[in-house]
Amino acid sequence: MKRTITIIGSGMMGSALAFPAFENGNEVRLVGTPLDKEIIEECKRSGKHPKFDRPFPKGVEYFQFEDWQEAVKGADFVIGGVSSFGVDWFLNEVLAYLDPAMPVLSVTKGLINLEDGTLISYPAYWKTELLKKGIRREVNAIGGPCTSYELVFHDQTEVAFCGKDTAAIKMMKEAMQTSYYHISTTNDVIGLESAVALKNAYALGIALTIGLVNRQHGAEAGLHYNSQAGAFYQATKEMTKLLRLQGADEDSTVLGIGDLYVTVYGGRTRKIGILLGEGKTYEEALDILAGVTLESLVVARRVAKAIYRKAELGMVDLTDFPLMTHVNDVLDHGKDAELPWDSFTFDNTK
Amino acid sequence: MKRTITIIGSGMMGSALAFPAFENGNEVRLVGTPLDKEIIEECKRSGKHPKFDRPFPKGVEYFQFEDWQEAVKGADFVIGGVSSFGVDWFLNEVLAYLDPAMPVLSVTKGLINLEDGTLISYPAYWKTELLKKGIRREVNAIGGPCTSYELVFHDQTEVAFCGKDTAAIKMMKEAMQTSYYHISTTNDVIGLESAVALKNAYALGIALTIGLVNRQHGAEAGLHYNSQAGAFYQATKEMTKLLRLQGADEDSTVLGIGDLYVTVYGGRTRKIGILLGEGKTYEEALDILAGVTLESLVVARRVAKAIYRKAELGMVDLTDFPLMTHVNDVLDHGKDAELPWDSFTFDNTK
Repeated sequence: MKRTITIIGSGMMGSALAFPAFENGNEVRLVGTPLDKEIIEECKRSGKHPKFDRPFPKGVEYFQFEDWQEAVKGADFVIGGVSSFGVDWFLNEVLAYLDPAMPVLSVTKGLINLEDGTLISYPAYWKTELLKKGIRREVNAIGGPCTSYELVFHDQTEVAFCGKDTAAIKMMKEAMQTSYYHISTTNDVIGLESAVALKNAYALGIALTIGLVNRQHGAEAGLHYNSQAGAFYQATKEMTKLLRLQGADEDSTVLGIGDLYVTVYGGRTRKIGILLGEGKTYEEALDILAGVTLESLVVARRVAKAIYRKAELGMVDLTDFPLMTHVNDVLDHGKDAELPWDSFTFDNTK
Repeated sequence: MKRTITIIGSGMMGSALAFPAFENGNEVRLVGTPLDKEIIEECKRSGKHPKFDRPFPKGVEYFQFEDWQEAVKGADFVIGGVSSFGVDWFLNEVLAYLDPAMPVLSVTKGLINLEDGTLISYPAYWKTELLKKGIRREVNAIGGPCTSYELVFHDQTEVAFCGKDTAAIKMMKEAMQTSYYHISTTNDVIGLESAVALKNAYALGIALTIGLVNRQHGAEAGLHYNSQAGAFYQATKEMTKLLRLQGADEDSTVLGIGDLYVTVYGGRTRKIGILLGEGKTYEEALDILAGVTLESLVVARRVAKAIYRKAELGMVDLTDFPLMTHVNDVLDHGKDAELPWDSFTFDNTK
């Protein structure tokens, strides 16, 4: 069944979703945000996203943001493709004006921490804020290990769509699934969104070890994975604990572990982790990566803040999260990147 | 406190343990098996293991197997460093003649499947077999993400020592821990040993995706991690399920996930997985890897056999293990390596 899908936000992830969406036989309209003007111009001119190696399938339509309402007309659902820095913009400029009956699927990854240490998902945040305006709407979301440029290459990819409205996410799954884009469905919004956000913070912690190996052996040292694996083990342990606190389903947690895996390899988080691991100060690392969007740093800080707050309230024991607190100390207190390895050991003897 | 540690088996892992053992101030005696004659000769001549880039610390002593009883005299404990193909040899030639009061720590990784689908650890197997000879002994074991050549490089490494005799494993931990070798302790022998064995089978499944990417994009295609991460997610899910069936502690499971991570990158399992993923037949892959010890194949088949048997007995549902059964079909039934991606999706909606 052919559907019409409008993607708002033409960054890499939003744009990459145009591939499975169009190739599955749907009409696809890609709308840039006001920051995406040049991207949309380039797409209109060449049919290619400036950051992708392959052109879009012929037939995808492109819109500047001023025409977004026209692009949404007659759509079966809208995909929100903004970064976590665009969460409030998307709320105020799009969701506030969108027909509440129009299903929305968001790819924005992150969490928001409340005063009491609670971490809430963007769909929950949007819902609450929209209710203040008298608008009742659910937002659905995508989680799971998927880097945009690999989706463009038709690499085999496992993701999940989460939302409270089962009929809507099943309709979206049917519209989007292809021979390379495999979609699970779940009502566990907070679990999946938490997994997807937490993995950014933990991928940073694991990437530190790559920089530490470079520091010790030189960047051409070849295979050195023991320390990555040791950090991955601890990250899995802490993520599992935190996700249990968040009330996550086990499947959401495990998909988040897969997401952690791909983020260590594929993302921008890796770059800052390696620089810090090599011994650069936080300021030096940011200088080197000037212009790169580092959502992971925001997430890492928010999660750390939430855990410290939960610890103050007696809800968690900080010693259960030595990797998270270490990442926080490296980012914000100038601590050397070498990991607190002994604190990752356990004693399960009687 | 200085101790005397005798390592029997001078393959890569047994030999690598001489580094933390000696550097922590102990006397270390490395004994070859009858298959290791040339290795020991080379060690005596040059002080270096032929497969390592760095020489042993000066002071490690080397023994041919005919002198093993002398090498064990006065030792505080013995490390068993044979491969899984040497399990019965180690039982009949060493354990059967060793003072039952001498603690033993084994690095051999694997499981043995019984007729009813039960998977038992090598320590349990040795204990049962020795009892038949009237000998009562516990064997302790090492698990966790550790490749031998990285240990030689002093890379940061997280492992666990497991055993029923808490005092013995704590003594061994104290003797072996260094600034780079970090040791957890646990009584969960079956859990840790199962995790360590299972990860071999699952690493093979994940490595298939690397070969599949090479098949599709060429070996120089650069970053392609979505499919690895999708398989890693599924492997984590199935390993967690199987380890729960085995009665594993959660810490053992999570350390096994770290071990899975390092095995995808560092091991021989990776090589055969890539070849099969690229489209080589099982026989072609074995030809290319002629002479390489492939313990992972033995483990993969044993685990698959156990799961099929458990399914026959109604204890598990085979559809919960699509990656494991796929690996088995690729190895033994000539199935193409492309993974059954849709079977990895879940539906957690109401």
